[in-house]
Amino acid sequence: MAPQEPVADIALIGLAVMGQNIILNMNDHGFVVCAYNRTQEKVKEFLETGAKGTKVVGATSVEDMVGKLKKPRRVMMLVKAGDPVDAFIKQVVPFLEKGDIIIDGGNSEYLDTIRRVKELSEKGILFVGSGVSGGEEGARYGPSMMPGGNPEAWPHVKDIFQSICAKSNGEPCCDWVGEGGSGHFVKMVHNGIEYGDMQLICEAYNIMKDVLGMNHDEMSEVLNEWNKGELDSFLVEISANILAYKDKDGQPLVEKIRDSAGQKGTGKWTAISALQYGMPVTLIGESVFARCLSSIKDERTLASKSLEGPDAPKFDGDKKAFIDQIRQALYASKIISYAQGFMLLREAAKEEDWKLNYGGIALMWRGGCIIRSVFLGNIKSAYDKNPQLENLLLDDFFRDAIHNCQKGWRKVVSTAVEMGIPTPCFSTALAYYDGYRSERLPANLIQAQRDYFGAHTYELLASPGKFVHTNWTGTGGNISASTYDA
Amino acid sequence: MAPQEPVADIALIGLAVMGQNIILNMNDHGFVVCAYNRTQEKVKEFLETGAKGTKVVGATSVEDMVGKLKKPRRVMMLVKAGDPVDAFIKQVVPFLEKGDIIIDGGNSEYLDTIRRVKELSEKGILFVGSGVSGGEEGARYGPSMMPGGNPEAWPHVKDIFQSICAKSNGEPCCDWVGEGGSGHFVKMVHNGIEYGDMQLICEAYNIMKDVLGMNHDEMSEVLNEWNKGELDSFLVEISANILAYKDKDGQPLVEKIRDSAGQKGTGKWTAISALQYGMPVTLIGESVFARCLSSIKDERTLASKSLEGPDAPKFDGDKKAFIDQIRQALYASKIISYAQGFMLLREAAKEEDWKLNYGGIALMWRGGCIIRSVFLGNIKSAYDKNPQLENLLLDDFFRDAIHNCQKGWRKVVSTAVEMGIPTPCFSTALAYYDGYRSERLPANLIQAQRDYFGAHTYELLASPGKFVHTNWTGTGGNISASTYDA
Repeated sequence: MAPQEPVADIALIGLAVMGQNIILNMNDHGFVVCAYNRTQEKVKEFLETGAKGTKVVGATSVEDMVGKLKKPRRVMMLVKAGDPVDAFIKQVVPFLEKGDIIIDGGNSEYLDTIRRVKELSEKGILFVGSGVSGGEEGARYGPSMMPGGNPEAWPHVKDIFQSICAKSNGEPCCDWVGEGGSGHFVKMVHNGIEYGDMQLICEAYNIMKDVLGMNHDEMSEVLNEWNKGELDSFLVEISANILAYKDKDGQPLVEKIRDSAGQKGTGKWTAISALQYGMPVTLIGESVFARCLSSIKDERTLASKSLEGPDAPKFDGDKKAFIDQIRQALYASKIISYAQGFMLLREAAKEEDWKLNYGGIALMWRGGCIIRSVFLGNIKSAYDKNPQLENLLLDDFFRDAIHNCQKGWRKVVSTAVEMGIPTPCFSTALAYYDGYRSERLPANLIQAQRDYFGAHTYELLASPGKFVHTNWTGTGGNISASTYDA
Repeated sequence: MAPQEPVADIALIGLAVMGQNIILNMNDHGFVVCAYNRTQEKVKEFLETGAKGTKVVGATSVEDMVGKLKKPRRVMMLVKAGDPVDAFIKQVVPFLEKGDIIIDGGNSEYLDTIRRVKELSEKGILFVGSGVSGGEEGARYGPSMMPGGNPEAWPHVKDIFQSICAKSNGEPCCDWVGEGGSGHFVKMVHNGIEYGDMQLICEAYNIMKDVLGMNHDEMSEVLNEWNKGELDSFLVEISANILAYKDKDGQPLVEKIRDSAGQKGTGKWTAISALQYGMPVTLIGESVFARCLSSIKDERTLASKSLEGPDAPKFDGDKKAFIDQIRQALYASKIISYAQGFMLLREAAKEEDWKLNYGGIALMWRGGCIIRSVFLGNIKSAYDKNPQLENLLLDDFFRDAIHNCQKGWRKVVSTAVEMGIPTPCFSTALAYYDGYRSERLPANLIQAQRDYFGAHTYELLASPGKFVHTNWTGTGGNISASTYDA
């Protein structure tokens, strides 16, 4: 093969929807992109259709692709998370030299990213794991981007990333997140929060439909109304559009869709991380489980014929007031969810030794991504006011917001409970709020139980740090437990 | 060293409280046990104190220990889960021969057990991972035992295990669980359920204390009363004792205990497994998170000074009736928790190809272990009636029980919600019940959202198996997503 003239600013591997759109986005911003795909036909097809008339160049092999790149070479992958990422790294590395950069823009597990940053660093290759959010539209016109990994890569990536990303009030929704796997971790938490936001909107929809008996145009109108205020967000906006969307027969299309939610893992990973780091991220946990429950629809259908609900009267309160209370429940629950998500970020940063800029993360999520919202601007402000903020709930703005919402929130949850409408996320958010603001929880009884049956010892309130064992029965031994775990 | 006369039926490595008690239990049943411990002094001390006057023999080294064993040799470990288990296996194996048996009676992760069964099987050694539950008392006088692993080991282990284990109506609370890591998996789910049971009792205690203002003797009396009926269980019994227990100054000791619950991981593993297998085991999940929340007490204390609760009136209903409703909430929530736990067992068995005997598992938990209860007898009966039972909630007995409880359950949750008392597990159980009995959940909106922003496609109710994409905005592309995950 004849030696190539290096013409491209960056290479992009993986021509599925996200890859194609990111390439066109980069092209719009004046960057020359070299497109590559495992299946060659896809490159050809893309050059002849979507990329026709652009400066995008194609590559016929990994070697060809690398040969077309200016130095330091930047190779970005948008391929399926897992083995394909390692496989492409293995294919690309032999053609790279020290100081070249590999960027993984897929939804990789952050633990894999930690490993890859380390392994490639030993070879002198700078690895970046970057969360990219925004779906096809975002990728095309400005995604939220969350790059982390080898900090030496950032100066060489910054210009491209901050050019193509979404902007919020002129500020790029992309900044350096931190070391190791922090970029993918932040993206994972983003996705977990997205699961929560989606489930919260579903619960509001379910209550409007089943408690208030509203039709789809009415519900759509309510969401459009909410979208003008503090709940202004992409997900509320599209939900309003979805509820208003009619099938060819004039009926709401959404009701024809099977109520079995799919998931590809990032919500699940967030919940698992929460458990691993010991942070009570209950709302994301419940939203993942809600999808699991939705997916066993056949079993639910069977159960629905045998398990009865309450003998509840029809709703006879003030419908308009109740709709506003649903808004309050949604808003308060959303505050809890984000407070929990940021607690998880804080704990992970502590354990992994990442220096995270929480306000910066809120700004990255402010635009471009699926959870983009006015709300994230409020979070940014809270961290601007106090970068050391312990918890979002302790910020004046959010504390007042919760206080203003709590009456309606409690009313909605108790009504749902009495009427037999499932609200797992509204409910867990409220239980969390009441637990978080309790100086005293009943866990003292758990400690007593553990000491009773397993001699685990307990700590005395009056003597912090002093752990003692009580012989509760007067008969058990006094050996303290070391192998029995509970 | 002079050749040993093989005198011992089994060796036991690890002389912490569980190990010592299991040895004495085996001795009581006529088995000769060889005791060994990494720290030699512990062996000597045990022979001179707890094991004085018994047939227990000590070993001075692993070689000495193996030399004292009859064939096939049985070596049981009760050591800390993780590396110590692998370390001891490595030490013991060189002295064993084909057909010898190693039993891990600690709280190992079931994935480690799967690996060990396989690795040792290749060397001809039969490995058993056995859950052992019951705390120090159980270990001494009859634990619940859940052995799984290499089935060829069972005939050589059965006699000892079924002799020393707990009995329920004369039947041993120990039977062969299944292949691979199933014994430790079942023990893990047992511990997860234990977390749930403990948290449920805490919620009942919290409501009695903070809603009804009951004193500790009154609460203890209520639990003693409950313990005579369908809630008859070890944990309710000890909780009654704990609440009645007075410190030297005459005050209830339980209130002097710091309300920060510890955990050693098995509850967390259960919740993680639930997420991995995609089963909505929400109650155990919330109980683990409740412990996490309890453990950040300093932050809660800070929050309690800033975050306000509801302006709720004092409880002015019928106190006696409400106490019975708390019982109903506890009982119904407990049914949900076990139904979820058995769903997890069912799914894991399916994916791991274990043949589990669900009634047998209920019987193993019926006596000896921490969650032992009359209730587990009802579960055993349900599976005896119908071994193919899809879900516990569909059994007549449990369905009727839930139906009888639901009014009180809803009243307790809605009262707690209105009064600001956290009941994460009562609440999630109820949300789950209402979700599980819903033929239709709002997850259709989630599917529409995912299709809207990520072209994920959705399934039509009218055409099962047919996945379609809608161009909701009229502007987006028609490429279906393959790399974007949400």
